[in-house]
Amino acid sequence: MKRLVVVGGSDAGISAALRAREVDPSWQVSLVVADAFPNYSICGLPFFLSGETPRWESLAHRTRGDIESRGIELLLDTVAEQVEPAEHRVRVRLASGIEQAIAYDRLVLGTGAMPAVPPIRGLDTPGVYLLHTMAESFAIHQHLTMRSPKSAVIVGGGYIGLEMADALRLRGLAVTLFEAAPTVLQTIDVELGRLLEDELQRHDIDVRTSTAVESIQAGAGRLVVRSVAGERVEADLVLVVTGVRPQTDLGRSCGVSTGVRGALRVGRRMETNVSDVFAAGDCVETRHRLVGEPTYMPLGTTAHKQGRVAGENAVGGCAEFHGSLGTQVVKVFDLIVGRTGLREDEATSNGFSPWTLETVTWDHKVYYPGASQLRVRVTGDRRSRRLLGAQLLGKYGAEVSKRLDVFATVLFHGMTVDDVAHLDLSYTPPLGSPWDPVQMACMEWALHVPTSQEERESA
Amino acid sequence: MKRLVVVGGSDAGISAALRAREVDPSWQVSLVVADAFPNYSICGLPFFLSGETPRWESLAHRTRGDIESRGIELLLDTVAEQVEPAEHRVRVRLASGIEQAIAYDRLVLGTGAMPAVPPIRGLDTPGVYLLHTMAESFAIHQHLTMRSPKSAVIVGGGYIGLEMADALRLRGLAVTLFEAAPTVLQTIDVELGRLLEDELQRHDIDVRTSTAVESIQAGAGRLVVRSVAGERVEADLVLVVTGVRPQTDLGRSCGVSTGVRGALRVGRRMETNVSDVFAAGDCVETRHRLVGEPTYMPLGTTAHKQGRVAGENAVGGCAEFHGSLGTQVVKVFDLIVGRTGLREDEATSNGFSPWTLETVTWDHKVYYPGASQLRVRVTGDRRSRRLLGAQLLGKYGAEVSKRLDVFATVLFHGMTVDDVAHLDLSYTPPLGSPWDPVQMACMEWALHVPTSQEERESA
Repeated sequence: MKRLVVVGGSDAGISAALRAREVDPSWQVSLVVADAFPNYSICGLPFFLSGETPRWESLAHRTRGDIESRGIELLLDTVAEQVEPAEHRVRVRLASGIEQAIAYDRLVLGTGAMPAVPPIRGLDTPGVYLLHTMAESFAIHQHLTMRSPKSAVIVGGGYIGLEMADALRLRGLAVTLFEAAPTVLQTIDVELGRLLEDELQRHDIDVRTSTAVESIQAGAGRLVVRSVAGERVEADLVLVVTGVRPQTDLGRSCGVSTGVRGALRVGRRMETNVSDVFAAGDCVETRHRLVGEPTYMPLGTTAHKQGRVAGENAVGGCAEFHGSLGTQVVKVFDLIVGRTGLREDEATSNGFSPWTLETVTWDHKVYYPGASQLRVRVTGDRRSRRLLGAQLLGKYGAEVSKRLDVFATVLFHGMTVDDVAHLDLSYTPPLGSPWDPVQMACMEWALHVPTSQEERESA
Repeated sequence: MKRLVVVGGSDAGISAALRAREVDPSWQVSLVVADAFPNYSICGLPFFLSGETPRWESLAHRTRGDIESRGIELLLDTVAEQVEPAEHRVRVRLASGIEQAIAYDRLVLGTGAMPAVPPIRGLDTPGVYLLHTMAESFAIHQHLTMRSPKSAVIVGGGYIGLEMADALRLRGLAVTLFEAAPTVLQTIDVELGRLLEDELQRHDIDVRTSTAVESIQAGAGRLVVRSVAGERVEADLVLVVTGVRPQTDLGRSCGVSTGVRGALRVGRRMETNVSDVFAAGDCVETRHRLVGEPTYMPLGTTAHKQGRVAGENAVGGCAEFHGSLGTQVVKVFDLIVGRTGLREDEATSNGFSPWTLETVTWDHKVYYPGASQLRVRVTGDRRSRRLLGAQLLGKYGAEVSKRLDVFATVLFHGMTVDDVAHLDLSYTPPLGSPWDPVQMACMEWALHVPTSQEERESA
């Protein structure tokens, strides 16, 4: 019997293992997981910490039993330390400290990412947390429930920082949010970032943008956070969430090439340069569907897809990863904001000639109760008129995220902005308009896009 | 100056007029409207009658001023009686009774549909209404507000019938719904139709399926509705909403050919067989994007698209209607149900080899509050594995309709069911899953579709 060994129990690893068994159940599939929590929703941690998800156990996408019932051997608390590709084996260390070698025919690396550690002094001070693993999440939870902190500082205004601001506010803490960049959520345009800041402030979050943190110190029972510019904020708890970097030690140990931001390099079939070794998820470079160059975009959705492709190919299948569009969405209090594809600056640096238009429409016919305004930013190429990206901001309940998905599906197919009007989208007054906001925004773009003589000639 | 005359002030007509002015403002555009209500949302009438939309004026997509400010001449209360194509003129009758001839260079017919009149005796009894025009809507509204009826019978369990059941129940009336077919909403599968019936019954609607109505009689201050099988229900008000048929008198009067269900025949450019005469909306045949043959699918979304194409071409543009998928959605109390593409029986009769799988999933991660179950029915072709259609049923607020739109966009591009897993859709635990329900349902289909030896060979 052939054996597939998968290292990593999060999105990519689990997807690879499940898909392998699905495609060819004759393979033995072993999943090496460093902790005791396979297939937990890291994206769900803010909701566990907010109290909205009272039991951490419910964060599991699948239980241990679910996974084992699919014929997958689970090796928990088992750390993969070294791959020996010539011998086709992985050296692991068990919880007991004992070392073992596991033989493989094919190997999938799904080692994920680890927190980026920013250059801030005092990160090891008790009460300072870098949220990423279940273990850290338990430590924060214990701090919140046992020590009843009254205030928190969050360093980093990305997706997790914003979700945690929401979460800790919901628990009643006073929250100060530091972001080194001029606006929060750098993955969306400044215009929408500002609206997110308004929303945070409406919920009494003290938002401090353009403010890099220099140090965190313990003092008089509290933590003192100081910015580079000399601002000083005291808090009972500090969360540092400034992004992640690929966890590639294991891959590099056996000669897997790396690329953008040190991530493991893979082809469309998720194969590495090392024979019989595949890799997927937050530890690898990702092909952007609209851009020639590889990128680094650690996203759960992408990890699932890449893992599935890796698992299928590892047992002899022939699947390809079709590329990511960087589609992302987040709920911050009562707002939903999301993006897919390229923003104007990203498009320009990739050789496009982009133009962006923001359209404000109602999410559904305004004569039906509960209508709210939706902001749709459409970025298209002036020469080819192809859609390059879209960003949406609207109220929770206004079907923002699935409208983003219509854009993502349009982008997947390389449609022009003009052609979006031809889509036969659904309409009923309580939920939309005869031209959906997605279409209205594209029609406005098509009507107003400036076309210079030069662009007309080169079109 | 060239003149475009558009007949019809609803979706198709208004879209044609607006698009013509947008594409070439040098044209004079005149809009002939039989009543005083241009651009009213017929789809909004149930919400006016329920009381959710208190002012009928707010049903206007655009005001008279909005339309005129776009340079469109509005001829209200003006009935187009005859087209004289050789002379390029339309004979109209003004509200005063005076006849006039209006010359055109190009003509767009957007004469819409009229209620199908079922073979029921007593339809002209006072208190019996066929909901379609603003005028009838006012009559019903007056009946509801001045005479305070306690009970209503609705004949017809299609979209409007269901919305009106919801509307009248909301007003506190006892409602009996008669449907001649075995389930309500014949445009969706029986399995989902039954769930809709449960929802209606949960809201105390007396649903009587497989029950054709034979007669309506006035008696003792109330109306008596009798079924063919002899059932007898008394009510204060009866609504008959059993579908529509194309309004084609004007088109036929000048020699426009007709086709399916008597609708005007048009090409992809929305041109008729009569020179310089275009037609669009509920009065024309519609090209189904997945089916070779023309169909009749009167839908507001389609009327908008066809009108836009007709208007653009009428003033010398070169646009094409890209086909309809029959995408439809309706809110019935707390449920949303919708469909796009072909159902299994429709697919079979069009030469496909369809197979349908229903998947039940959560609309978002179940660990985040408010998750509800979503039913997704995927119909795909067993030979080509192409997606043919999808139906969704879920709770209001569960982003059902925009998930339907992802399917509609997939169908527009002729994707296989398998490839839907490659779409980079958005995810955050409060709104979705790493694989969106759209993808989960497609992956289930792909995993379980039966493939006979014969089908393998012909694939």
